[in-house]
Amino acid sequence: MTPLQPSAVETPAVVIRMDAVRSNLRKMAEVARSNGVALRPHAKTHKLPELARLQLAFGAAGITVAKIAEAEVMAEGGVTDLFVAYPLVTDTKIERAMRLAARLDNLILGVDSLEGAARLSAAAGAAGRIQNVRLEIDTGLRRTGVGPDDAIGLAKRIAGLEHLRLTGIYTYRGAMLDGRPTRDLQAAGTEEGRMMAALAQAMRAEGLPIADVSVGSTPTAPFCAVVPGVTEIRPGTYIFHDRMQVALGVCGPQACAAHVEVTVVSRPAPDRIVIDGGSKTFATDVQPHQEPALLEGFGRIVEAPDAVFERMSEEHGVVRVAPHHPFRAGDRLRVVPNHICSTLNLHNHVYLLDASGIRKVPVAARGMLE
Amino acid sequence: MTPLQPSAVETPAVVIRMDAVRSNLRKMAEVARSNGVALRPHAKTHKLPELARLQLAFGAAGITVAKIAEAEVMAEGGVTDLFVAYPLVTDTKIERAMRLAARLDNLILGVDSLEGAARLSAAAGAAGRIQNVRLEIDTGLRRTGVGPDDAIGLAKRIAGLEHLRLTGIYTYRGAMLDGRPTRDLQAAGTEEGRMMAALAQAMRAEGLPIADVSVGSTPTAPFCAVVPGVTEIRPGTYIFHDRMQVALGVCGPQACAAHVEVTVVSRPAPDRIVIDGGSKTFATDVQPHQEPALLEGFGRIVEAPDAVFERMSEEHGVVRVAPHHPFRAGDRLRVVPNHICSTLNLHNHVYLLDASGIRKVPVAARGMLE
Repeated sequence: MTPLQPSAVETPAVVIRMDAVRSNLRKMAEVARSNGVALRPHAKTHKLPELARLQLAFGAAGITVAKIAEAEVMAEGGVTDLFVAYPLVTDTKIERAMRLAARLDNLILGVDSLEGAARLSAAAGAAGRIQNVRLEIDTGLRRTGVGPDDAIGLAKRIAGLEHLRLTGIYTYRGAMLDGRPTRDLQAAGTEEGRMMAALAQAMRAEGLPIADVSVGSTPTAPFCAVVPGVTEIRPGTYIFHDRMQVALGVCGPQACAAHVEVTVVSRPAPDRIVIDGGSKTFATDVQPHQEPALLEGFGRIVEAPDAVFERMSEEHGVVRVAPHHPFRAGDRLRVVPNHICSTLNLHNHVYLLDASGIRKVPVAARGMLE
Repeated sequence: MTPLQPSAVETPAVVIRMDAVRSNLRKMAEVARSNGVALRPHAKTHKLPELARLQLAFGAAGITVAKIAEAEVMAEGGVTDLFVAYPLVTDTKIERAMRLAARLDNLILGVDSLEGAARLSAAAGAAGRIQNVRLEIDTGLRRTGVGPDDAIGLAKRIAGLEHLRLTGIYTYRGAMLDGRPTRDLQAAGTEEGRMMAALAQAMRAEGLPIADVSVGSTPTAPFCAVVPGVTEIRPGTYIFHDRMQVALGVCGPQACAAHVEVTVVSRPAPDRIVIDGGSKTFATDVQPHQEPALLEGFGRIVEAPDAVFERMSEEHGVVRVAPHHPFRAGDRLRVVPNHICSTLNLHNHVYLLDASGIRKVPVAARGMLE
């Protein structure tokens, strides 16, 4: 691992090793290529147009985003093929999508209700265009999406809307099997891929021209990709990986391309150090001992993998260390967070570290919530 | 509560009712005034120079921040008396503090180690100034700070440093009693105030001229303020309050000045709605059923207080509703988050709602981590 010059960045800051990023991009591109499926990475992980362009350069067919605001930032940054994998249901957001569609090569929108689809069709008609949509399927996560049993009926009604073209179906469910979190990623990916491929077949049998069967997340994408009938995978975290992915067995620690550089600000007791990053620096959405990754603490300290990042307040990270650890106030440490997507989202900028040096880049789509 | 025009803001967005803010500021100012203590609110809650200036207009003696970067933003925004309640231990941050000190009426810095203090003294000497510092005391939270037993020895050595003036002691511990989270705020505040006042007396008896005894958080500040010997309180959350404060009995729901305005994007089942805010919109640092507030879910839905905000992924909020609730895709809801400080930190801007209208303001110190 390239050692950092302590003076290069003020802490706390996210530092990204671009050699590891390129290796991660290469591997997932090869998964897609060798299985004959499209790769449409989710940009919510990095929120950086520059990295989305790099994913495209490594063979991605397009980019996925979760919000119209993210799509706008990616379009501004030169991405021309975008899938908004989220239901747009209000007129203002739909209008923004129509304006965006006019400047892109391809915009695909997610739908999961007839009401939302009808609004979208009306807006597309007013804009004089046919809008590509994919129907979201709930394969067990129970958030948005229509259940497989209701999917064909809803798909028929959506396909009947004048200004929409229903091109496919998509789902997200992470590492899940039989409705529960699992560490058996192969079984999870296979089940996810098979459910969706079977549904697509059933829909086609009813006369629906389902072309796209889009599935998969970082842990399951390689196992989804091999299932016949799957046409696209949408991993996000794989660009950086994180401690959760290592715990799930998706990758080794060396694949973690992003860490948070911190400074020890206090060692008030032999068994405790305090670092200058808390819950405004590290995400808390993946809590310790949460299924399926069952992590201890909030991150891995690269310089002391046996230390336990036990607690956080907003700007303090409390780490339990062994008395023999030499750390003292002023020392630098690197922390691989449990969940990089929501951690990176807390930072206004990141540092890209390359053989040629280190470069500060704004996280352009960070906080683009509306 | 003033009803919002649905068209006024795109969702998800933080909306702040300024009438409630003013009421909250007035009450805490009266707590300080009637007890003869200074009020130095913590700006980490709002991160907005405009609101720090409002706190000063309501009688605050100065502002507290957690980071030198926050202090810089507040100084840029016209605040001239700042306390950085966090140990600065690296040369770069100390240099920034010295530059900041030169343009402020008063800058106070926190210290908790001799090493940090010595570095600070050297930098102050180089800058040709005497730097005011306060010693952080660990009163049970076990993050930064020196324990009461070691405080006098350390304080003597710090007071002996040539370019520092040790003006006081400070602590933070929230709602805690006998080392454990508690809901007995009066007992907690009394204990905190007495510990610190007694320590200050013991330090004075050893010849240390301790003037400032700075304590208290939103739940405990009113109870700390009445303890003889306490000279300053530093609440933060009180400007907005939040669901945690309501659960602790600190205030009623009407005192919650900030909510997140969201849109229902899906109602996939009669007992479930999905809103357009997840863990990138709502903080997850205060988890459900966590002591001492023991909250169910991640926020209170103003339009349906019996609904349970059960789960989040990054952009989805999953809310369990009763089948009779009328909510459908496109509806607006208001959510009072569990913890407003870390929630607001996720937003690039907020909307200030006043009798005169609604105004979009950047959260200037948001993400100012370094």
